[in-house]
Amino acid sequence: MKVQRILPTEEAGDLLGLTREICAGELAPRVAEYEANHEFPRETVRTLGKAGLLSLPYPQEYGGGGQPYEVYLQALEEIAYHWLAVAESVNVHNLSCYGTATYGTPAQRAELLPAMLGGDQLGAYCLSEPEAGSDAASLTTRAEKGEGTYRISGTKSWVTHAGHADYYNVFSRTGGPGARGLSCLVVPAGTPGMEVHARERKLGVWSSPTAQIGFDNAEVSADRLIGRPGKGFLMAMGALDCGRLGIAACAVGLAQAAADYAIGYARERQQFGQRIISFQGVGFMLADMATQIAAARALTLSAARLKDAGLPFSLEAAKAKLFATDMAMKVTTDAVQVLGGAGYVADHPVERWMREAKLLQIVEGTNQIQRLVISQGLD
Amino acid sequence: MKVQRILPTEEAGDLLGLTREICAGELAPRVAEYEANHEFPRETVRTLGKAGLLSLPYPQEYGGGGQPYEVYLQALEEIAYHWLAVAESVNVHNLSCYGTATYGTPAQRAELLPAMLGGDQLGAYCLSEPEAGSDAASLTTRAEKGEGTYRISGTKSWVTHAGHADYYNVFSRTGGPGARGLSCLVVPAGTPGMEVHARERKLGVWSSPTAQIGFDNAEVSADRLIGRPGKGFLMAMGALDCGRLGIAACAVGLAQAAADYAIGYARERQQFGQRIISFQGVGFMLADMATQIAAARALTLSAARLKDAGLPFSLEAAKAKLFATDMAMKVTTDAVQVLGGAGYVADHPVERWMREAKLLQIVEGTNQIQRLVISQGLD
Amino acid sequence: MKVQRILPTEEAGDLLGLTREICAGELAPRVAEYEANHEFPRETVRTLGKAGLLSLPYPQEYGGGGQPYEVYLQALEEIAYHWLAVAESVNVHNLSCYGTATYGTPAQRAELLPAMLGGDQLGAYCLSEPEAGSDAASLTTRAEKGEGTYRISGTKSWVTHAGHADYYNVFSRTGGPGARGLSCLVVPAGTPGMEVHARERKLGVWSSPTAQIGFDNAEVSADRLIGRPGKGFLMAMGALDCGRLGIAACAVGLAQAAADYAIGYARERQQFGQRIISFQGVGFMLADMATQIAAARALTLSAARLKDAGLPFSLEAAKAKLFATDMAMKVTTDAVQVLGGAGYVADHPVERWMREAKLLQIVEGTNQIQRLVISQGLD
Amino acid sequence: MKVQRILPTEEAGDLLGLTREICAGELAPRVAEYEANHEFPRETVRTLGKAGLLSLPYPQEYGGGGQPYEVYLQALEEIAYHWLAVAESVNVHNLSCYGTATYGTPAQRAELLPAMLGGDQLGAYCLSEPEAGSDAASLTTRAEKGEGTYRISGTKSWVTHAGHADYYNVFSRTGGPGARGLSCLVVPAGTPGMEVHARERKLGVWSSPTAQIGFDNAEVSADRLIGRPGKGFLMAMGALDCGRLGIAACAVGLAQAAADYAIGYARERQQFGQRIISFQGVGFMLADMATQIAAARALTLSAARLKDAGLPFSLEAAKAKLFATDMAMKVTTDAVQVLGGAGYVADHPVERWMREAKLLQIVEGTNQIQRLVISQGLD
Repeated sequence: MKVQRILPTEEAGDLLGLTREICAGELAPRVAEYEANHEFPRETVRTLGKAGLLSLPYPQEYGGGGQPYEVYLQALEEIAYHWLAVAESVNVHNLSCYGTATYGTPAQRAELLPAMLGGDQLGAYCLSEPEAGSDAASLTTRAEKGEGTYRISGTKSWVTHAGHADYYNVFSRTGGPGARGLSCLVVPAGTPGMEVHARERKLGVWSSPTAQIGFDNAEVSADRLIGRPGKGFLMAMGALDCGRLGIAACAVGLAQAAADYAIGYARERQQFGQRIISFQGVGFMLADMATQIAAARALTLSAARLKDAGLPFSLEAAKAKLFATDMAMKVTTDAVQVLGGAGYVADHPVERWMREAKLLQIVEGTNQIQRLVISQGLD
Repeated sequence: MKVQRILPTEEAGDLLGLTREICAGELAPRVAEYEANHEFPRETVRTLGKAGLLSLPYPQEYGGGGQPYEVYLQALEEIAYHWLAVAESVNVHNLSCYGTATYGTPAQRAELLPAMLGGDQLGAYCLSEPEAGSDAASLTTRAEKGEGTYRISGTKSWVTHAGHADYYNVFSRTGGPGARGLSCLVVPAGTPGMEVHARERKLGVWSSPTAQIGFDNAEVSADRLIGRPGKGFLMAMGALDCGRLGIAACAVGLAQAAADYAIGYARERQQFGQRIISFQGVGFMLADMATQIAAARALTLSAARLKDAGLPFSLEAAKAKLFATDMAMKVTTDAVQVLGGAGYVADHPVERWMREAKLLQIVEGTNQIQRLVISQGLD
Repeated sequence: MKVQRILPTEEAGDLLGLTREICAGELAPRVAEYEANHEFPRETVRTLGKAGLLSLPYPQEYGGGGQPYEVYLQALEEIAYHWLAVAESVNVHNLSCYGTATYGTPAQRAELLPAMLGGDQLGAYCLSEPEAGSDAASLTTRAEKGEGTYRISGTKSWVTHAGHADYYNVFSRTGGPGARGLSCLVVPAGTPGMEVHARERKLGVWSSPTAQIGFDNAEVSADRLIGRPGKGFLMAMGALDCGRLGIAACAVGLAQAAADYAIGYARERQQFGQRIISFQGVGFMLADMATQIAAARALTLSAARLKDAGLPFSLEAAKAKLFATDMAMKVTTDAVQVLGGAGYVADHPVERWMREAKLLQIVEGTNQIQRLVISQGLD
Repeated sequence: MKVQRILPTEEAGDLLGLTREICAGELAPRVAEYEANHEFPRETVRTLGKAGLLSLPYPQEYGGGGQPYEVYLQALEEIAYHWLAVAESVNVHNLSCYGTATYGTPAQRAELLPAMLGGDQLGAYCLSEPEAGSDAASLTTRAEKGEGTYRISGTKSWVTHAGHADYYNVFSRTGGPGARGLSCLVVPAGTPGMEVHARERKLGVWSSPTAQIGFDNAEVSADRLIGRPGKGFLMAMGALDCGRLGIAACAVGLAQAAADYAIGYARERQQFGQRIISFQGVGFMLADMATQIAAARALTLSAARLKDAGLPFSLEAAKAKLFATDMAMKVTTDAVQVLGGAGYVADHPVERWMREAKLLQIVEGTNQIQRLVISQGLD
């Protein structure tokens, strides 16, 4: 990845340099094996955490990196370039800190954030349910208020880090029907009544554990309800806006990896007495890939700068997520094509990247939901 | 698959009915398990063979089905609808009979064809080499003439049925460089000097075994050189024309399976209080899928009718292969999208179909080679 | 256009030969001038009529050609290849006969059809209104029953042949709201109370006159209400199904003209010391054009054969219209691109074809309406 | 156009405000009429010039605006939003200053630039020839050295401002074959031996005059050869890099105009009892348009920032030009579609925008040339 980046600060350059160093030293040597073994690289994620890369966009006063999103997303892109599952972990962990950092009471921030941002803990995010995916506002997991506690019952699906996280943001119904009846509770791992179901057999991103979690009267202290009751949906949507930027950056990094690999192959592979990159049929495909990646990166960073400037960025985040992930699906599919038969086998990573790309069109709101969000914003 | 087909004969209707019956009874119950286990369903293929479905387009006098390609391809589509790997076996087996049936001497036909077409034997096709993929004319496997024999040395790659076939069409250099120096030899399984290498770890079509085969002075009787020396390239290209029609039909069947599954899901799945098919964002995607499939099927059968009429069909076969397989890649990817998160896990077959579709854009000439063939035909 | 066609009869071959002859002799020499002058080629259309080409798919007993749609559409494609506006006239005229031929009483057929199908008269079709386009069932033009007459009041828009037709199918509300309140009346040209408004300034298809028509108590004999009252919407939808097949065939012909022109140019034009067709960047674009055209043609004829066999074809007609017209838009736009700067000026017809193609995505139901129809058919 | 822009300086905000004001006051009221009349708005362009908008990116010391490209391009986008032909004039004029500003001797800069940048004069750019379009290095117009003069002979094509410019950059062969034999001469309007041929009948951008110019021993003072002999090709390519950024910005503005118009229409137009923007079939199309525009804008400005930072930007300019103009073609075509029949007639400007968009895929290097440039950059 020889991308010419214009960064806002010198510090940002150092940070990306550090990120690349860690990627080269810690991620690159492990990715193939962990992915093949469906094994979660908990220690590698911890290494990122210790380097401060798990909490870049959060305030320094609580242990975060204090970086603008424009910088955080470029670091995330570098990580995704080397290992999408780890970048996904970073993105999800950042989501899991969002509610507390943004809506938490001063007491909750003081109590919870230092650990969340310290790099050792890992968070999870429990929003979707079997019958409530795109339509999050209809979720049915309930948190019943008791004496100084909430008792949570219901089933959450598609939980990244399920069984590996240290705490879980559990969006639950504490009030009536609809979006306003939802609240977010931070549930420590190991809480009785919480059960991790069988791991999902995903198309890709194998090293990242995903599972349903069942809650059966799982009891948490009432002060683990973040901010005020009824703010859960707003919190979830706000986190999603950030998460969409994260997914867009992941898509850019993944696609860049695939394009670089395909370019490298096309520069070496000879057929008909020529390197295949010199055939316009291949070269133009690579040019389109490079163009689409550059557009996705620019759009993603443009949306991030709006956020960094305190301007509304929700629609632009949706556009970036939509564009970048559709792009990544196309680019990774074409990267396999450039390698031909060689691309179809596990000797090369391109088939893995193609499998991984598909996830990105679905998570943090399917691309159909993004279009819905954008079209409503146009009206 | 409720496709309204207009068939040329009543017999063809019966044949498709029989095919569907076998698919329902023999393929559907086994596909998930065999695919998950990477196990080749040799007995299931034999069952098809006994029903006459392995040799439909070949002359009845030698044991073939005597069916026009228009009918054969629709049967193949039905098989691919249920199990792509098995359809691929049928297609490859038909390729493996092509040289003998078309270029073989009367003696070779009389000797070899009855077994090839009988349904019990299975053939393989050895054309590609590690350094000769799209550029088949540059292949380097040599067959040295000896006393009444040829001794073959070289390495063949991407051999479907490797280790499971009863005979192998081995395209070898018997003359000078270029296309005119190539011949096709039919090598029986078990010939000394022939070694099947490690099975390829493919992105999909797992039940179908693919491997390199090394030849080290593998000796075959000289009368196993099909037709005349130097005709190998013509034979390979002629077989490819047919194989492309076969792949196009496979793509149509695979895409139809994915579309039907996605439609079924979208008719059941509710979000926001409605079945999701009733949202135009989903419904229009399904409409586009159905439209593209219908176009691919029509194009494929249109090319087949040219062949059946004895007219040139090579360019139309390339168009059908190009269009149908690009379509299948798109349709299967979108089918996963319709299911959202559910589509990304192995609980539903759509992720498998998406992995399988990618193969079709690559085999029997990558889609870039198809475009090259077509553009040269326009000049 | 060197398309290899397999036709159902020898007569069909003769008919296409005749069509090509008339196109070469009558259309080709006039098209550029009439288009540039926005002049309707009424006499050229009459020539087609005299040759029987205006009523090919209608029964011979009333003066039609008695041809299957499969043949009619290929003749229409040939006409569109040379002059889209004339093909549009043929298509619209055929629509204008549909109601009478299909829903007319025996008396109406006997009285009206011979003139309609005779080749001298030209019909028009008045369905859309300013506020009722895609939603035809909401149209507000009323036909009030009087003594042996209907008095029509309202405004019809997008009327092809406005001011040039001999009779107009006017879809009017004779009953209550909704689809069941509509009827179709055949109104002779020159009926008092009928006024042709200013001609539309269209993007293309300039020689074809399009205008609004105002009806102000325009009186027609009650026996000009075709079939039974309340059947108008069914009649309109049935005609649309046929009209969509016609538009699909027009799109195929138009795109083929553009592709052939671009291919011809690319075979001659030299840059960088080579004919530009030999650059894969151009050649692959042409290959994609040829492939998409072939798919559209095959799909269109496949839908036609369903109609000819008396099978349901409505959904397939919608697919053909959708696919063929989106294809024509893309192919004509790319044809301009192949010519580069030369394509952008009126010295070559490709810019005209691109302007014309856009119409086809809109008429007989926009392509969004086609997707709606198809998606509802999937449910 | 309610685009949230983050600008580098407050001054830039003022400048864009001024630009919008002039667009609203001077361009918007004239565009429809001038376009319909194929009349060049020379006075309107002069008004822009007087406001400093014709020379924004050039040094203030010679009378330019001293603005970074990031700002200039956003002003250009605003102009294109209101009138593409005028934006094209600005872009071409800026190209016509490039050689002198970048390669001119100090004397040439001092002599020529103040007038070029003063806002009153308008420049033209003569590079293409009938037989040398994409392959500029093969151009054959010759400039023969005489005594203190050059005599130019040859034919230049696709000259914007032909007959209206005050001076012409004429790329001519002063040396041997190939790129190194070319030089750039600045030829004053009215030079004897220079003849403007018939105006091209373009598909769109009608108010902008385009014509061939013939040179027959047209004599210019030798000091009008900019910089050193043999530098012409470098100068042309450097100007093209800038021109590509300009075209990308034009494409963004044009597409935004079309999208805004379509959105406005879709928010008003009712069918089936609803505003059509509320149908996902329309709303998702609009969302895709908005997304693609945002990506193109971000990519264009990202490339501009590289230029502003003094970094290599040639490949990124090619990507921006390719992406933005393909996007504009698609978005304007879809904007017509949103309006349906209404979009196809001149009552609304969307059909004009669609015609105009096509130009952008062709000028400053066809998009095939962009892909070639990019693919070579990847190798």
